[in-house]
Amino acid sequence: MAKKPFHRSRTVAKSRVNYVYSQTVSLPGTLNIEADALPSKIVLIDYNEANQTQVQLETPEECAPYLDTESVSWVDVSGLGNRDIMQRLGRVFSLPPLILEDVVNVPERPKVEDYENQLVIIARMVITNEGRTGFYSEQVSFVLGKHYLLTIQEEPERDCFECVRARIRNNKGIIRKQKADYLAYTLLDAIIDGFFPVLEVYGERIEDLEQEVIAKPSRQTLQKIYQVRRDLLTLRRATWPQRDTINALIRDGNELISEEVRIYLRDCYDHAVQIIDMVETYRELASGLMDVYLSAVSNKMNEVMKTLTVMSSIFIPLTFVAGIYGMNFNTEKSPWNMPELEWYWGYPACLAAMVAITAGLLFFFWHRGWFESFSTTKHD
Amino acid sequence: MAKKPFHRSRTVAKSRVNYVYSQTVSLPGTLNIEADALPSKIVLIDYNEANQTQVQLETPEECAPYLDTESVSWVDVSGLGNRDIMQRLGRVFSLPPLILEDVVNVPERPKVEDYENQLVIIARMVITNEGRTGFYSEQVSFVLGKHYLLTIQEEPERDCFECVRARIRNNKGIIRKQKADYLAYTLLDAIIDGFFPVLEVYGERIEDLEQEVIAKPSRQTLQKIYQVRRDLLTLRRATWPQRDTINALIRDGNELISEEVRIYLRDCYDHAVQIIDMVETYRELASGLMDVYLSAVSNKMNEVMKTLTVMSSIFIPLTFVAGIYGMNFNTEKSPWNMPELEWYWGYPACLAAMVAITAGLLFFFWHRGWFESFSTTKHD
Amino acid sequence: MAKKPFHRSRTVAKSRVNYVYSQTVSLPGTLNIEADALPSKIVLIDYNEANQTQVQLETPEECAPYLDTESVSWVDVSGLGNRDIMQRLGRVFSLPPLILEDVVNVPERPKVEDYENQLVIIARMVITNEGRTGFYSEQVSFVLGKHYLLTIQEEPERDCFECVRARIRNNKGIIRKQKADYLAYTLLDAIIDGFFPVLEVYGERIEDLEQEVIAKPSRQTLQKIYQVRRDLLTLRRATWPQRDTINALIRDGNELISEEVRIYLRDCYDHAVQIIDMVETYRELASGLMDVYLSAVSNKMNEVMKTLTVMSSIFIPLTFVAGIYGMNFNTEKSPWNMPELEWYWGYPACLAAMVAITAGLLFFFWHRGWFESFSTTKHD
Amino acid sequence: MAKKPFHRSRTVAKSRVNYVYSQTVSLPGTLNIEADALPSKIVLIDYNEANQTQVQLETPEECAPYLDTESVSWVDVSGLGNRDIMQRLGRVFSLPPLILEDVVNVPERPKVEDYENQLVIIARMVITNEGRTGFYSEQVSFVLGKHYLLTIQEEPERDCFECVRARIRNNKGIIRKQKADYLAYTLLDAIIDGFFPVLEVYGERIEDLEQEVIAKPSRQTLQKIYQVRRDLLTLRRATWPQRDTINALIRDGNELISEEVRIYLRDCYDHAVQIIDMVETYRELASGLMDVYLSAVSNKMNEVMKTLTVMSSIFIPLTFVAGIYGMNFNTEKSPWNMPELEWYWGYPACLAAMVAITAGLLFFFWHRGWFESFSTTKHD
Amino acid sequence: MAKKPFHRSRTVAKSRVNYVYSQTVSLPGTLNIEADALPSKIVLIDYNEANQTQVQLETPEECAPYLDTESVSWVDVSGLGNRDIMQRLGRVFSLPPLILEDVVNVPERPKVEDYENQLVIIARMVITNEGRTGFYSEQVSFVLGKHYLLTIQEEPERDCFECVRARIRNNKGIIRKQKADYLAYTLLDAIIDGFFPVLEVYGERIEDLEQEVIAKPSRQTLQKIYQVRRDLLTLRRATWPQRDTINALIRDGNELISEEVRIYLRDCYDHAVQIIDMVETYRELASGLMDVYLSAVSNKMNEVMKTLTVMSSIFIPLTFVAGIYGMNFNTEKSPWNMPELEWYWGYPACLAAMVAITAGLLFFFWHRGWFESFSTTKHD
Repeated sequence: MAKKPFHRSRTVAKSRVNYVYSQTVSLPGTLNIEADALPSKIVLIDYNEANQTQVQLETPEECAPYLDTESVSWVDVSGLGNRDIMQRLGRVFSLPPLILEDVVNVPERPKVEDYENQLVIIARMVITNEGRTGFYSEQVSFVLGKHYLLTIQEEPERDCFECVRARIRNNKGIIRKQKADYLAYTLLDAIIDGFFPVLEVYGERIEDLEQEVIAKPSRQTLQKIYQVRRDLLTLRRATWPQRDTINALIRDGNELISEEVRIYLRDCYDHAVQIIDMVETYRELASGLMDVYLSAVSNKMNEVMKTLTVMSSIFIPLTFVAGIYGMNFNTEKSPWNMPELEWYWGYPACLAAMVAITAGLLFFFWHRGWFESFSTTKHD
Repeated sequence: MAKKPFHRSRTVAKSRVNYVYSQTVSLPGTLNIEADALPSKIVLIDYNEANQTQVQLETPEECAPYLDTESVSWVDVSGLGNRDIMQRLGRVFSLPPLILEDVVNVPERPKVEDYENQLVIIARMVITNEGRTGFYSEQVSFVLGKHYLLTIQEEPERDCFECVRARIRNNKGIIRKQKADYLAYTLLDAIIDGFFPVLEVYGERIEDLEQEVIAKPSRQTLQKIYQVRRDLLTLRRATWPQRDTINALIRDGNELISEEVRIYLRDCYDHAVQIIDMVETYRELASGLMDVYLSAVSNKMNEVMKTLTVMSSIFIPLTFVAGIYGMNFNTEKSPWNMPELEWYWGYPACLAAMVAITAGLLFFFWHRGWFESFSTTKHD
Repeated sequence: MAKKPFHRSRTVAKSRVNYVYSQTVSLPGTLNIEADALPSKIVLIDYNEANQTQVQLETPEECAPYLDTESVSWVDVSGLGNRDIMQRLGRVFSLPPLILEDVVNVPERPKVEDYENQLVIIARMVITNEGRTGFYSEQVSFVLGKHYLLTIQEEPERDCFECVRARIRNNKGIIRKQKADYLAYTLLDAIIDGFFPVLEVYGERIEDLEQEVIAKPSRQTLQKIYQVRRDLLTLRRATWPQRDTINALIRDGNELISEEVRIYLRDCYDHAVQIIDMVETYRELASGLMDVYLSAVSNKMNEVMKTLTVMSSIFIPLTFVAGIYGMNFNTEKSPWNMPELEWYWGYPACLAAMVAITAGLLFFFWHRGWFESFSTTKHD
Repeated sequence: MAKKPFHRSRTVAKSRVNYVYSQTVSLPGTLNIEADALPSKIVLIDYNEANQTQVQLETPEECAPYLDTESVSWVDVSGLGNRDIMQRLGRVFSLPPLILEDVVNVPERPKVEDYENQLVIIARMVITNEGRTGFYSEQVSFVLGKHYLLTIQEEPERDCFECVRARIRNNKGIIRKQKADYLAYTLLDAIIDGFFPVLEVYGERIEDLEQEVIAKPSRQTLQKIYQVRRDLLTLRRATWPQRDTINALIRDGNELISEEVRIYLRDCYDHAVQIIDMVETYRELASGLMDVYLSAVSNKMNEVMKTLTVMSSIFIPLTFVAGIYGMNFNTEKSPWNMPELEWYWGYPACLAAMVAITAGLLFFFWHRGWFESFSTTKHD
Repeated sequence: MAKKPFHRSRTVAKSRVNYVYSQTVSLPGTLNIEADALPSKIVLIDYNEANQTQVQLETPEECAPYLDTESVSWVDVSGLGNRDIMQRLGRVFSLPPLILEDVVNVPERPKVEDYENQLVIIARMVITNEGRTGFYSEQVSFVLGKHYLLTIQEEPERDCFECVRARIRNNKGIIRKQKADYLAYTLLDAIIDGFFPVLEVYGERIEDLEQEVIAKPSRQTLQKIYQVRRDLLTLRRATWPQRDTINALIRDGNELISEEVRIYLRDCYDHAVQIIDMVETYRELASGLMDVYLSAVSNKMNEVMKTLTVMSSIFIPLTFVAGIYGMNFNTEKSPWNMPELEWYWGYPACLAAMVAITAGLLFFFWHRGWFESFSTTKHD
């Protein structure tokens, strides 16, 4: 039962305009934690080149002893829990109230804030919805200190950091030789790269819609195109400020980030630009699809109209001819009253005239090219 | 009776292009107060860390003694009243004529003006119209001095400052420990945050329209979409200069605003950017809805046309066949004249032919997929 | 008779793409005065704090003695007259040939040119066409010297400077205490503020069209929307460079403009930005109206189609049934030949079948919601 | 015969996407002269304040003696001729290979290149196609030295420099007193001003289309609108870089261009901006016309549909009524079988019923306002 | 069999949204080589002014001895082969892991990275698909050292470098006198110029579609327009960053690129800008075509509707008239019951009335101009 509101508020596919910043008028520094926020899970990973520990903590205060040691301490809080936990966390990490507010009052726009001794990064993580169109989206906040990194996620269930945890555990790559800034970069990179699979889903979705919109545009197609446009708009809103955030990290000289990590961040920046490129391209494609849809519907209507016109134009005149000879003029009163009815070849002549009319009209329509679309439909 | 013109001129929902700057050619510094301006209500709140007073004043001159004391004096004038009151107010606060003009000749574009010893901020406040689409919008002008803050609102009835007043009264938060610049920030923040509930209404409105436009697009839907686009355009016109105003406050080094308040303003700036993000996103959604609407109407017409075509294409040929045998050719004059009429199985054969024609046409339409949209309509 | 070409070339409503820069290949500095230019009227207003004179001069040379006195001399030339007058004027004011060309070869784009001792401002003035849609538009050129201001208008009949002349005459405001630069500002301000009433006309026009486009879109509506878009495009072309012109006056340090007047110009700049805001907003509204129009036309066609489909779908099958029993199969030849015709209840049964068919079809159409739009039309 | 391909490749109206840069992969500095390039015509005009000579030269080498004299030498090469001529020309003027490539491998984008002692300007000249829609467009390259100006045109037949030649011949204006930089300015100015008549043609074209699109939109209208949009796109592609080119000439301090000429160039720059303004305005108008066209076609279809619906809705029910009484139920078998047929007033009553039905339907259609568009059509 | 997936992933025409950056979450510096990557072919070209050698190498290590000699060594690796080859290549050229990742994990966005002693350029090469619409697109990476240039292409089969190889072999132009930076420029230039033939194909394609869309718009036309828009979007995505890349090479002072080569690169930059110009122009044309298509379809439907309306409006009333006289009112019961049937001129009068009705309706339709489009169709 605790699941339901969670799903509702996190999945784009379900609640559609959900990615709304709903701050209400409140004291600056107030923590507005939604009633359905999930309980916090605090995991501490402490490592240096030689050792690593991963423990789940009960209270925020337990991580205090790790923070000032030389080893890198990664405190990962997932689930915003309640106000009390968050305020205690703030005290342990000496977070100024405004930062704590940014971290807790989700959703916040991705940005980087530079406080004395601490660097706060707000990022947005998307996770593909197992191949279906929607995606999960949650805020991840980073607080980077000299020897520690605090990350705060909205929910404990899914993130894209598992590979980083594995790398630390297994001492793979250079991560255990590096400082906390490298860890922050690695996580940011994982977040950015997490957009690619989501975009791939939309790429395939657009390809499918391209087929559908030409072959058999239906009302559902329209809805799907609109949904894709909407989701891409949401993605776009997440990607642009993310790029600026990484750019600010590279450009603003902050001593917490080493020169070497800055070079890595340039790579991460390139990927963010690629993602924006893709989002914008997909948006243009989706918007072009709408035009195609409208044209395809017009095309179909055209075909319907042609069918109607051909049928009506042929049979209405014929019916008229038949109607003529269904009139009851008294042939006995006058030789001018429908003498055709009395002719020996009357009926066959009448039928012949009808065939001639039909042939003439068919030729007229064929000459105007009205039958082409019918035949192309078959082959295509 | 004084209410009616007021409502008409403040609510977007009623008078539509009302947010118009209608300055007429006039002497610079002239005060053009509309005839239906509400009488001014002057409320003074004077506070320091230890004490606070809230008094309603009769004349602008009464606040003079408070202005130069060390305590913070917030003079809140709501209702533009008449020219005389405003000029006396200008004299009490030594406002230059151009500033007074900006403050009084509403609507003015949000901006910040930096005079010696005083900082003038023009802002636009929106207040949600109790859940309905329109919103109230009024100008709030700030004049910030060293120990005082003068705010001038267009109307006394509603504003979004109540929570700030309460905070001062109850000494909640740090507001009583701070100077007038912090007060100005708090009020600006309240104004900015006041956009969120208004936007939320439009977010829901768009969601409703999305349902409506696909399910049953009507003429009203069109009107509603247009209305939403129009209102968002008005909101947009208010938000962009507001963002620039806050940015100017942060960037331009004015000694009236302390470093600490500048940090708070950065937070306020982030919210303004979020609001712009949302407005632009909603605008794109609303504009996409228009495309969807047009397509949906085409879709419906398509369905209507198919119905017509199916009905006509089936019954017109049948009627023709019936018409044939309604002709009065004299069967006695010739064995070629409609011998079918005399056959033993004539009528059943004729009916059988009709059934065959109907079946053939139905197969043709089914093969072209014309019945699909009918069935999908039911399930969807 | 001299009036007609004048009206034709100045009113947007009549000659539509008239605001065209039609310089032909010519010697730089050549004066191309159109054959239908109006004769020049030269009015000199000379004033200082104590006195003021207003005289109409016959020749440009008569103003020479006033130019170097300490009092402010405003020479207002209205009507471009002929080349000779203009060249003599150029000599009196020592205007370089290129400037004279800018001033005379209308229309020129609004701009400011800074020559030694003189500042040349090209502006565009619009005057509302007495409530009708079009507007008059003419170029006003300013040549600002230390003690004089030369203004050149295209035509003598209407301008928006009357209030300024009255202010000088009646010594209202501070104008008589100020220098020529303040006069230039006042006139520029009058020009800028002159856009507001014109825009107000378009605001109302758009409101009217909004009603019309939903209620009863006709061919005229289309034409009107297009006309509004076109006029707004013309206004836009005038406003953007005007803003840049004022900005250049404020920013570029020219000693002819005092610091104090620069502050006044900032106010004027704000108004120019407001006008641009409004023009762009109206343009968006007008462009949105086009979409609405297209949708409304589709809606109407939908309604027409539904009427046709309902009528046809009901009566065509009925006619077919009637046609069946109009066939002349010989009932005597076979018991299978239309025995219904001989039944006692044949005709009532046939009518009952027809009623049943009609009811079935009406139910089908009602179920699909086709009658809703009819009923809503009545109430709405 | 040599004419035909020439015309084909220069006129927009004929070969439509012709303004294509078709460089193929080639050695840098290679001269790709098209096979149909016209033979070069070399005209030398040498002048100073006192004298002037105009001679047609046979070989590029003949101009060598003139280049270093104090008098201004304008060598005008029209027609790209063949590679040999161009290479010899390059040697005479010591042109670096890359410049020669830019000059010869047309079309190149307008730009300015600053080499030591020489300034190379690539410009695009348009010439109106005698009032018809298309226009001629060719590249003109300038090589400006201290005492000479080399201009290279694509074709010898038409240019817009005749007035400049006349001015030199007749010593009109100040041209003979000036240096080569002034000559370059005069020619550039002639090129820029040459856009005005071309644009005027499109202005009139758009006005005509506005009439046509409302009054009687046909398939040709659509084609014409598209053609205008296309041509404006081509013009736009020529004008934007041209403006940048002139701006670069003004801004980049190159000693080959004197301060005085820079002032003249500012005027030329203003004209370039005006041209861009006009092109963009026309583009918006043309794009708006497309919307109007689509709406007008919908309007016409609406009218057609109404005609059909009115006709069908009136006559189909009547035909049904007539069909009823055409049925052959045996009135003798039963008093219920169509007793109306035997009534005394049967036929008149039937006709009266038909008239009543018709009147009812006409009232219904009139009430829905369907006849309005018919009447307005007549008056309008 | 290895061919098929290759073709599928490189040709736009086949797999449509293929140009997707599909990095998955992975360790920075990881090489993700697709399973279907082609085996690497390593060709070394070593040359100086006097000599040149071209050898195909088996292993990356074989090129090591050439790299530090004074002669220019161009190592061209085509086909990404497998991870092992690439890592050995990285070791031979001392490539940092991040660079190797950029080079190998295709597709990467075009960019330039400046490492100590090495300059890495990522470019995108397009090759025309033998006149058909699609095009091949592959990434080419450059690693420029002091005396060597390493190029890595995705596939060995086709590139646009053949002419450069020929120039080196035959000592044509100045290439053998220049350093590795000139070689890099030449190859970049070849890549940029390779866009022109591809664009030319699209230019012709658009011209064809222009004809088709007006003359006979079909469902295929729609598909083709959409395909062109899509491909142009892909091209655009490749060209913009390419331009920035070249600009960065010119602007950023890197000592690996000499002043002289920078001048050549300016030429290359101009071409890149021209390509962008063309892509944007084509995009606008293609987007305009969509509008034309929609209008053309509406036009056709209009014509279809007119045919239907003319046919129905003429024959339905006639049928009604015939129906009247097909009624069986008993003429013997009353003199009012269809006495016309008994008239001597009854039938001829009835026919005459029908002719009159037809003539009247035809005049009505002719007067409304409905027959014009039919006649224009023939001539056009």
